[in-house]
Amino acid sequence: MASDEFDIIRRYFNSDTLAFPATEVALGIGDDCALLRPGAGMTLAMSMDLLQEGVHFLADADPFLLGKRSLLVNLSDLAAMGARPLCFTLGLCLPRVDAVWLEAFSRGLAEVAQANNCPLVGGDTSASHPDSGSLTLCIQVHGELPAGEALRRDGAQPGDHIYVTGTLGDAAAGLGILQGRLGATLADAQRAALLDAFYVPESRIEAGMCLRSFANACIDLSDGLASDLMHVLRASGVGAEIDLQALPLSAALQGCVPQALQEQMAVSGGDDYELCFTLPPEREAAMQAALASLGVPVRHIGVVRAQQGLLWRKEGTLSTRQWQGYRHFSAAHMPDEGEH
Amino acid sequence: MASDEFDIIRRYFNSDTLAFPATEVALGIGDDCALLRPGAGMTLAMSMDLLQEGVHFLADADPFLLGKRSLLVNLSDLAAMGARPLCFTLGLCLPRVDAVWLEAFSRGLAEVAQANNCPLVGGDTSASHPDSGSLTLCIQVHGELPAGEALRRDGAQPGDHIYVTGTLGDAAAGLGILQGRLGATLADAQRAALLDAFYVPESRIEAGMCLRSFANACIDLSDGLASDLMHVLRASGVGAEIDLQALPLSAALQGCVPQALQEQMAVSGGDDYELCFTLPPEREAAMQAALASLGVPVRHIGVVRAQQGLLWRKEGTLSTRQWQGYRHFSAAHMPDEGEH
Repeated sequence: MASDEFDIIRRYFNSDTLAFPATEVALGIGDDCALLRPGAGMTLAMSMDLLQEGVHFLADADPFLLGKRSLLVNLSDLAAMGARPLCFTLGLCLPRVDAVWLEAFSRGLAEVAQANNCPLVGGDTSASHPDSGSLTLCIQVHGELPAGEALRRDGAQPGDHIYVTGTLGDAAAGLGILQGRLGATLADAQRAALLDAFYVPESRIEAGMCLRSFANACIDLSDGLASDLMHVLRASGVGAEIDLQALPLSAALQGCVPQALQEQMAVSGGDDYELCFTLPPEREAAMQAALASLGVPVRHIGVVRAQQGLLWRKEGTLSTRQWQGYRHFSAAHMPDEGEH
Repeated sequence: MASDEFDIIRRYFNSDTLAFPATEVALGIGDDCALLRPGAGMTLAMSMDLLQEGVHFLADADPFLLGKRSLLVNLSDLAAMGARPLCFTLGLCLPRVDAVWLEAFSRGLAEVAQANNCPLVGGDTSASHPDSGSLTLCIQVHGELPAGEALRRDGAQPGDHIYVTGTLGDAAAGLGILQGRLGATLADAQRAALLDAFYVPESRIEAGMCLRSFANACIDLSDGLASDLMHVLRASGVGAEIDLQALPLSAALQGCVPQALQEQMAVSGGDDYELCFTLPPEREAAMQAALASLGVPVRHIGVVRAQQGLLWRKEGTLSTRQWQGYRHFSAAHMPDEGEH
């Protein structure tokens, strides 16, 4: 009777590769609840994403890459808080039961779960008919960090320097390539790098944990620098000045689009899942040494000001430029999202 | 730009009535993660449900009752584990932004959240166009319980007595009424009682916490006694004998459908969200006194046997009867679900 769903769970999800044991997981898949034991004195951090076919991803998205990306973008929220991943839960509504899709999707999840020691511990799976409901997935990640050490959005101080990890705008370019709007003349290696930036954002978990010792505030860049930095500034009651010429751009992005569009993609492209954080200048050298030892590139891009508002510096001139959101899909396909 | 979603969150969800403070919640809505601090020595229990319009509930479902029911059925999983609720997260995908719907839905959630001291702490909201995606909600509840005291499914012992709280089959009858298939001749009070059983299942949180001192195994009845008890028996490697004449039936159910159908609804109707649990006979008196002091009705309905399989006793005769699933909607509208 309920064999379909229980079969799906057993075959594709309650597997050694995905639902593997972890010290803090007292009970995984198969009971009314999963049970988790964070370490003594640790705070639990959690974040949820709900993704729907036709809304948040295209129906023909590669299921292996979709599995990887779905878990990676959730882990990015743990990184932004400075948390170490413990486990995740998965809700699935499947209008069709496609063994090839399920195998590839769960393999993508498993690859990221193993790399981050973050097993699947539970969730909810239902199969419906193709004419009812949309393919939907919901992932919640859980991590831990020492009490009081979370990298919050509300701690930025006037005088703090502002930094980002990695490079910006690559994911927006990758999505443009996916949609056939960009990259016709790119070399294969550059195409691949930009597509990877969209589908397989770098895990910044280690960087986030390391930044607990240095940063006053941190956020991950999901909607784009302009939009996400404003969350930090508003929460902290401060403003900022960003040097547009300091933004880290990859060679691939620079080879892909004109300079003005590079800038726009870096500022408002979204989906980069790099960390943006602030800290006092006197901690800069130690932070840079620590991130360098992890192999994480970091760039100083601006400064926090006491006066509210976000200023953009270019060639010596400051402006309050409002960036057009560089949204990838039409409104019907890529809504703005509000993380709670 | 992203004002719609952030407006929705601020207006309907990040409110005093729904996102209220709680001791264990270190940080609620508004950062990359919510932060939770379970008590020292406590284990965290969590459970997720993903619900989609047209699949798990009808498009014209009353949003206030849908809000209440969505959180109540999740809390039932905490009850089945013996956990005390701490907080919940909510994922929403909204193909239309309907202020009346959102107000009523969030009010329903808030009523149950307050009654169970279980505030909203985070999640993910997106609005899409009506022609992309289905209205979908995902709820994850989080609770705590002393390490090692969880009511698991795998602890039933041969010789244990089997009990259920409340009455069985009422929710199935309530859904039958909703769909116009049942209850044409019922008195208003009985109709209301059965509809309530479907929409507003009793919270068995206190009963579950109390049962930590007595029960060897426990599950909540979401798919029906026959189906859910089998999960306990399989996990525990045992069998059981259930006395059909001992099943607790409400006067409303008895006034609603013929006797054979009462039995079928009680055994395989589902959606009752009562607790089914086992314990050694020597603990029965103390358990009954404890549940009576909470005002929770309980009924002894059978016994655990060493031999696997599920037997049904009626008028002195034992059978291995396979119950037809009494599924409420067509297959397209009420799929079987697999909880991980």
